[in-house]
Amino acid sequence: MTERQLARLLRDVRGGRVSVGEAVERLRALPFEDLGFAKVDTHRELRKGFPEVIYCPGKTVEQVLAIGQRVAERHRVALATRCCPEVYEAAKEEFPNVTYDEVARVMVIGKPPRASGRAKPVAVVTAGTADVPVAEEAAVTAETMGCRVERIFDVGVAGLHRLLWHREKLEKARAIIVVAGMEGALASVVGGLVSAPVIAVPTSVGYGASFEGLSALLTMLNSCAAGVAVVNIDNGFGAGYFAAVVTRRERR
Amino acid sequence: MTERQLARLLRDVRGGRVSVGEAVERLRALPFEDLGFAKVDTHRELRKGFPEVIYCPGKTVEQVLAIGQRVAERHRVALATRCCPEVYEAAKEEFPNVTYDEVARVMVIGKPPRASGRAKPVAVVTAGTADVPVAEEAAVTAETMGCRVERIFDVGVAGLHRLLWHREKLEKARAIIVVAGMEGALASVVGGLVSAPVIAVPTSVGYGASFEGLSALLTMLNSCAAGVAVVNIDNGFGAGYFAAVVTRRERR
Amino acid sequence: MTERQLARLLRDVRGGRVSVGEAVERLRALPFEDLGFAKVDTHRELRKGFPEVIYCPGKTVEQVLAIGQRVAERHRVALATRCCPEVYEAAKEEFPNVTYDEVARVMVIGKPPRASGRAKPVAVVTAGTADVPVAEEAAVTAETMGCRVERIFDVGVAGLHRLLWHREKLEKARAIIVVAGMEGALASVVGGLVSAPVIAVPTSVGYGASFEGLSALLTMLNSCAAGVAVVNIDNGFGAGYFAAVVTRRERR
Amino acid sequence: MTERQLARLLRDVRGGRVSVGEAVERLRALPFEDLGFAKVDTHRELRKGFPEVIYCPGKTVEQVLAIGQRVAERHRVALATRCCPEVYEAAKEEFPNVTYDEVARVMVIGKPPRASGRAKPVAVVTAGTADVPVAEEAAVTAETMGCRVERIFDVGVAGLHRLLWHREKLEKARAIIVVAGMEGALASVVGGLVSAPVIAVPTSVGYGASFEGLSALLTMLNSCAAGVAVVNIDNGFGAGYFAAVVTRRERR
Amino acid sequence: MTERQLARLLRDVRGGRVSVGEAVERLRALPFEDLGFAKVDTHRELRKGFPEVIYCPGKTVEQVLAIGQRVAERHRVALATRCCPEVYEAAKEEFPNVTYDEVARVMVIGKPPRASGRAKPVAVVTAGTADVPVAEEAAVTAETMGCRVERIFDVGVAGLHRLLWHREKLEKARAIIVVAGMEGALASVVGGLVSAPVIAVPTSVGYGASFEGLSALLTMLNSCAAGVAVVNIDNGFGAGYFAAVVTRRERR
Amino acid sequence: MTERQLARLLRDVRGGRVSVGEAVERLRALPFEDLGFAKVDTHRELRKGFPEVIYCPGKTVEQVLAIGQRVAERHRVALATRCCPEVYEAAKEEFPNVTYDEVARVMVIGKPPRASGRAKPVAVVTAGTADVPVAEEAAVTAETMGCRVERIFDVGVAGLHRLLWHREKLEKARAIIVVAGMEGALASVVGGLVSAPVIAVPTSVGYGASFEGLSALLTMLNSCAAGVAVVNIDNGFGAGYFAAVVTRRERR
Amino acid sequence: MTERQLARLLRDVRGGRVSVGEAVERLRALPFEDLGFAKVDTHRELRKGFPEVIYCPGKTVEQVLAIGQRVAERHRVALATRCCPEVYEAAKEEFPNVTYDEVARVMVIGKPPRASGRAKPVAVVTAGTADVPVAEEAAVTAETMGCRVERIFDVGVAGLHRLLWHREKLEKARAIIVVAGMEGALASVVGGLVSAPVIAVPTSVGYGASFEGLSALLTMLNSCAAGVAVVNIDNGFGAGYFAAVVTRRERR
Amino acid sequence: MTERQLARLLRDVRGGRVSVGEAVERLRALPFEDLGFAKVDTHRELRKGFPEVIYCPGKTVEQVLAIGQRVAERHRVALATRCCPEVYEAAKEEFPNVTYDEVARVMVIGKPPRASGRAKPVAVVTAGTADVPVAEEAAVTAETMGCRVERIFDVGVAGLHRLLWHREKLEKARAIIVVAGMEGALASVVGGLVSAPVIAVPTSVGYGASFEGLSALLTMLNSCAAGVAVVNIDNGFGAGYFAAVVTRRERR
Repeated sequence: MTERQLARLLRDVRGGRVSVGEAVERLRALPFEDLGFAKVDTHRELRKGFPEVIYCPGKTVEQVLAIGQRVAERHRVALATRCCPEVYEAAKEEFPNVTYDEVARVMVIGKPPRASGRAKPVAVVTAGTADVPVAEEAAVTAETMGCRVERIFDVGVAGLHRLLWHREKLEKARAIIVVAGMEGALASVVGGLVSAPVIAVPTSVGYGASFEGLSALLTMLNSCAAGVAVVNIDNGFGAGYFAAVVTRRERR
Repeated sequence: MTERQLARLLRDVRGGRVSVGEAVERLRALPFEDLGFAKVDTHRELRKGFPEVIYCPGKTVEQVLAIGQRVAERHRVALATRCCPEVYEAAKEEFPNVTYDEVARVMVIGKPPRASGRAKPVAVVTAGTADVPVAEEAAVTAETMGCRVERIFDVGVAGLHRLLWHREKLEKARAIIVVAGMEGALASVVGGLVSAPVIAVPTSVGYGASFEGLSALLTMLNSCAAGVAVVNIDNGFGAGYFAAVVTRRERR
Repeated sequence: MTERQLARLLRDVRGGRVSVGEAVERLRALPFEDLGFAKVDTHRELRKGFPEVIYCPGKTVEQVLAIGQRVAERHRVALATRCCPEVYEAAKEEFPNVTYDEVARVMVIGKPPRASGRAKPVAVVTAGTADVPVAEEAAVTAETMGCRVERIFDVGVAGLHRLLWHREKLEKARAIIVVAGMEGALASVVGGLVSAPVIAVPTSVGYGASFEGLSALLTMLNSCAAGVAVVNIDNGFGAGYFAAVVTRRERR
Repeated sequence: MTERQLARLLRDVRGGRVSVGEAVERLRALPFEDLGFAKVDTHRELRKGFPEVIYCPGKTVEQVLAIGQRVAERHRVALATRCCPEVYEAAKEEFPNVTYDEVARVMVIGKPPRASGRAKPVAVVTAGTADVPVAEEAAVTAETMGCRVERIFDVGVAGLHRLLWHREKLEKARAIIVVAGMEGALASVVGGLVSAPVIAVPTSVGYGASFEGLSALLTMLNSCAAGVAVVNIDNGFGAGYFAAVVTRRERR
Repeated sequence: MTERQLARLLRDVRGGRVSVGEAVERLRALPFEDLGFAKVDTHRELRKGFPEVIYCPGKTVEQVLAIGQRVAERHRVALATRCCPEVYEAAKEEFPNVTYDEVARVMVIGKPPRASGRAKPVAVVTAGTADVPVAEEAAVTAETMGCRVERIFDVGVAGLHRLLWHREKLEKARAIIVVAGMEGALASVVGGLVSAPVIAVPTSVGYGASFEGLSALLTMLNSCAAGVAVVNIDNGFGAGYFAAVVTRRERR
Repeated sequence: MTERQLARLLRDVRGGRVSVGEAVERLRALPFEDLGFAKVDTHRELRKGFPEVIYCPGKTVEQVLAIGQRVAERHRVALATRCCPEVYEAAKEEFPNVTYDEVARVMVIGKPPRASGRAKPVAVVTAGTADVPVAEEAAVTAETMGCRVERIFDVGVAGLHRLLWHREKLEKARAIIVVAGMEGALASVVGGLVSAPVIAVPTSVGYGASFEGLSALLTMLNSCAAGVAVVNIDNGFGAGYFAAVVTRRERR
Repeated sequence: MTERQLARLLRDVRGGRVSVGEAVERLRALPFEDLGFAKVDTHRELRKGFPEVIYCPGKTVEQVLAIGQRVAERHRVALATRCCPEVYEAAKEEFPNVTYDEVARVMVIGKPPRASGRAKPVAVVTAGTADVPVAEEAAVTAETMGCRVERIFDVGVAGLHRLLWHREKLEKARAIIVVAGMEGALASVVGGLVSAPVIAVPTSVGYGASFEGLSALLTMLNSCAAGVAVVNIDNGFGAGYFAAVVTRRERR
Repeated sequence: MTERQLARLLRDVRGGRVSVGEAVERLRALPFEDLGFAKVDTHRELRKGFPEVIYCPGKTVEQVLAIGQRVAERHRVALATRCCPEVYEAAKEEFPNVTYDEVARVMVIGKPPRASGRAKPVAVVTAGTADVPVAEEAAVTAETMGCRVERIFDVGVAGLHRLLWHREKLEKARAIIVVAGMEGALASVVGGLVSAPVIAVPTSVGYGASFEGLSALLTMLNSCAAGVAVVNIDNGFGAGYFAAVVTRRERR
């Protein structure tokens, strides 16, 4: 219920067109209806230009398409993450404007906003090539949310010069997403080099005592460099989303 | 070595005032000297108005004071975290301008920048009263780095209305630090309510299966709300610092 | 051996129809025979209307059918959980009255009691759609044990208004089963909203630091809301059974 | 805002005593004010006779007393858990009606409801004597919330006959709280013997591979007996509270 | 109730000296009384010469003495483990015949059976000197239960020749208790050398990645040598008891 | 080298038939040759009637057959554990006397000793039917090593009367192997009922917080019943072997 | 940029052949270009004769070949670890000189240096046959880096005499790689026997409480023998590489 | 028993000065005596100039002194680690030549060998100042074993330029010990910069998710840089010892 609708109801009460009892009845439900709609309203305004997101695992192709349909009606873009090719094949039949990134396993329904060329980019950095799928999930998410993305892949700390070579790019970024598995040390090293916020994504890349990403996760949480925050293991989407939120004002 | 200094050296070489051998000598050291100084330079500019930080545990009173001295000479403010009262007692003798927050256990040497009254605040939210010391560490850190801070304490999810009561404040914040122990659910709930970035700080508050903060940490990492990133258990400083970095442009 | 049988035996001893030696022989076995039978008796009375339960994993189709046969002879209904479709296909041949829920993977042999329409329902709430199979296991179990069930799915804390929208339903429930993976915060939020007992079921839905449900499990165990108890990860059956036990008196 | 207040406001709007704009203003704030008050109302009715609970760790003596004061004004009883003797000493000065259980470390301000003699009791069972403090926290909590409590201590599975000796008492209970450390097997054994709901409380009693209660916690979560739910390690309060909630209707 | 008592009761029923009703009454209680007594009987016979055991932690001095008193009246010896010196000081006043081992922290009330000189001994082996207290708890327990004990201390695998030097002693033992912390490899090495059963006791000796004994525990559980079973970390008593049970027949 | 051979060598030195240099040469190699052979000798004598054991995983069919061949030449029986049917198919071609247990996945080459009918049996007890494969591995191992085995399956603590019904059998056993997954409480309950040594085998049966057998493992390690020792998760062979070692003297 | 190139540039500046501005431009990039090239230079010299290494998992066949191509152009040998046969099949087509070890899953492109026959060998020791693939990865790596390797397989501590039999070989080794799963005790035993550095490789061989190699890892980290260092679980490559680095001087 | 002693014994047998029986007697003990002495011999030669090591925790002052006495008689130096000042105070009274390092908590009895000035040093590097005690334990150990040590402290990755500044020193080292807590990333960064073997020591410095050093341990085990091996958490001694063993030949 919008403020306008509320005023109209009250005018109807004053004008005798709606009884007090009936108004009480409608207003009693208000807190939650209102809460619901207000929330959507608020979010629509705040998240303007941001896609709705569908997390695909555990959903059938039909469910993903149905949700995508509903989102597409109301918003400019819908983002589907961890999306298998079958869903994309089916989506192509349904939607006029749908793209799919095989590496990132991200499907975008609709047309995302274009990033301004002048905006400072979000840098997405990986330690190795096996971290690229998670990094691409982050990159595509951020791009779909209007960020310009600078990709810097395979610059792990085992060959520090590769990273230092890209220092200028790192220093120009408004936010840096560091994607690393194994020992995950890259986040700390990048965090020590630059002053932009570093969003660290541990990956499950590795074996043995990497314990499916636990090692990289702990490393990143314990980073001795200030300005580093962490998302879940392999959560490229979360990092891309967070980077977009953090740089939102900046980009406009 | 600045670009200007480098040009001057080269002109001296051309003008014969500096021999090639001497220039080689000075330039050979350049990569690292330069790296070192450049880094400091870069950081000085980027971090302008940001305090240097001393993490006190494992340092003697003398060591903390010595580092503080060095920082105070070069910077406007120095921040000492996890600082016990004895250090403060000794510091009062040494420095003219030193303050200490007993709850946050943070000591500030020098005079931090004043936050602009018009800047959007960083909200610091706690689930319970036992989370307040960590929250204050975050708040004092952010304030010392120039942020305006809005404190919203004891609004854990067990009484959701307490949190909803403050929704407006939350929506006005540029970044929100959520400090919670036990099950740490507050980060997800706040993350679902607002669109500002949420920096989640798990605390070691709790007992039994909270496993010294592990429970809250995992909760926050697995947050189903997008826009949540996490720092180490009890790392109020890291959250305050990250919030300041994230909101830097905004505040000016 | 019932009290009546015991009295008859003693009268037979007194009347000389049974020798002392023979009676000693029969009574020597009594503690355990009796314990055994008494247990069954007790249980039959106490659990009246409750199905026997067959946990299928690790049992062959033949074993499940054989146990189902034995149960069906003595009880009104048998419940088989984590039951694969093959078992159901075979069971249809054997039993006249057998139903199967594909999502819940629960098979019911026989005819469960009908829940009274006036009974307060057990609410089964999920955070996401991927939690539905576990929730359905809980729901079908509770229904088979005579409960009326109110399903409220996909109301996770990331969109709090979805949950609040259903607050009335939650407040009318006699017991609430909350099924959630990832960070599992929903149990605390529901526990803070209502006064009915909350039975929390962590699910293995999630990835990375959800550690196969450990994250949600710890969250629920550390719930800051009072009135929350927890069952094993993915244990929908256990939650449905517990809810039925807890609301038994209520429902009659 | 109560329904009556809402109706009065609407009548004032109709009567022109309150302008539409002013009413919109007051109603806009309504959802949360109302939510707040409604919540309290609801809870007051639902929790009638239930004490407010103060969890003491991390609170100063003054804070506990202040909260106790506020609760005492509005409710019949306040329960303070994990309360050290110093708090009690101070509370005696402040409140006319305060009792303290040294073993349970529970303080009760005010006069709890008397349990009806006819009500079926809640049984509180421990495996060993070292589990008694946690058990007493559960027992005192349940008693303060109006339950009759039957204590059955030191009946661990190492001497099964001790437990069986009390089987009749167990069968008469409406709910059973099982408190056990070490291997925590007692919950399963009790769960197999009776049909009442079993609320299992793992304790940190033990050493070595008990890992501060983890062993008992896992045991109880994996209980092969149906009808067992679990609370946090050493969480006697939670178990007592849950038992009271579960048996509420029963007891009246 | 013994078989003889049962026969007498039945004869009394037959002879009319006891009514059927009265007999039913007495027999109804039988299962558990009988179970109780039978258990005690059985145990008394089976455990002849074995001490009753009091685990002291979590018990007051008074409680330990009271239990000791009760045991001393009925049995030849009582064993109190993890017993602090204060308990011993108090016990000396109460009991005529009490000894205390400071290293093992074991108190013995009464006079244990003497081990036959011809019996094959139980060997108690430690990796280091820091493992000795746990080893002594094992040794004293086994001795109190009638075993002859051969102590072989400080023969860890870092100096294999020390162990091999004692090979003959190891080969003569009927059972071998291996007590080791840190990496706990000694159990496997001993298990590979001899054919007697090896009872492995991990200790919490060590630091860092020994994780309070977890390392040694896992090592011992994964022993590639057959014939090794494991008890809890630091559970010298359990190992001594198990060794005594295992060698019981042997020793007589 | 036997003592006799050593004496002969020395007599040859004295008699000049062997030079000092040659004797030094032969004796220098002695420690390890002797150690090696002595070990084999010792073992042959001590382990008489015991099969050699081949652990199949990670070995090719050819490797298992080759080792089996070598063992078969020197010993009466060879035991191959975790053996897949393909190995058995191949072995049937090679060996005249080979049997295979599909459930236990154990292959026996050769003819094991017959257990004496008078020997006290080893009882193998399982909590559920899913534990049977591990239990059969234990049972077949013990039988192949000459034990008489009494199988008591599916007597978990959820239905205690099933276990108590078999108490007599348990009391007659010389050693009891308890095989249980999920919460693993059965070991403690059996350990409390009887005085024979209990060898506990946790299994990976279960789901969720059973963590692949960790729950049952911790339960058994923390058993409050004395006389319980534990082997690795799913290690039926180890339990059967340990039981055979423990009861060796007994059985002859 | 070498020192010589730098001097030439400066001379060009002096001689007016290069403008100051241009020189500044080239030197500005210097620190990192130089760092990069210097690093490669340094490494080329230090690692002379050492292969570049390609870790295959997460790389496509094409990617591995492309990297191999680049390495082959610049270096004598390239080593590809965890390489599946498909890659080898493709590589055979591309490179003239390529070998593949199926057990070690290592592919070598090019011709490694021949180890001097006089060099002390690196011993690679395994506890069991299932550890051989990891051991071969270590052995082939070390050989490709110029080491002579002595293989001693299947000498686990369960049969200590097998290990002692090889003591002379162990004592002659310059470094010893110990590869063991299950309880991993072999590293400590070898570490206690010899004075050469022991590089311990835990393997994921085992089941149950070996927790995928965690048990062996902890064992090796806690080794009571000095002179033992550890690499990641199953990291044969890392151990072989480390051994080669450690013995480099020695071998020449 | 040396070869010479053996020959003499044999000559005595030949010459009739020792009977065959007596010689058998002495030779029967030989394998182990010999093993023992041979081991000592071997070790004496191999470890020449290396101190014996006493690990103090769990030993009384008297025990440490007694062992020190025995070592001092036979060797040049004895090293006592984790040694508290009280031991040193007592040792000063007993031994003429004893030194104590308060930070490293290492006591040296006797006079260690002097490192040759020309030997390449072992570098000991720390991430922070709180890691210094562990680093000093490593440094003093290595020095006592004859190494020259280069200390490079407080060069953690948060300020990479600090580390790069010291690159030359790192490149000159024969082995590098990297001591780091928190996220432990320094080991990987150093491992990527140099070609010398890196011995990584995780420390328990940190809080929260550092889990007492687990984070740094996992980081180091998963290092993406080749040439890194790891010792136990806080095990400075082990790292120093390993470095000395690795560089032994080098140093001479």
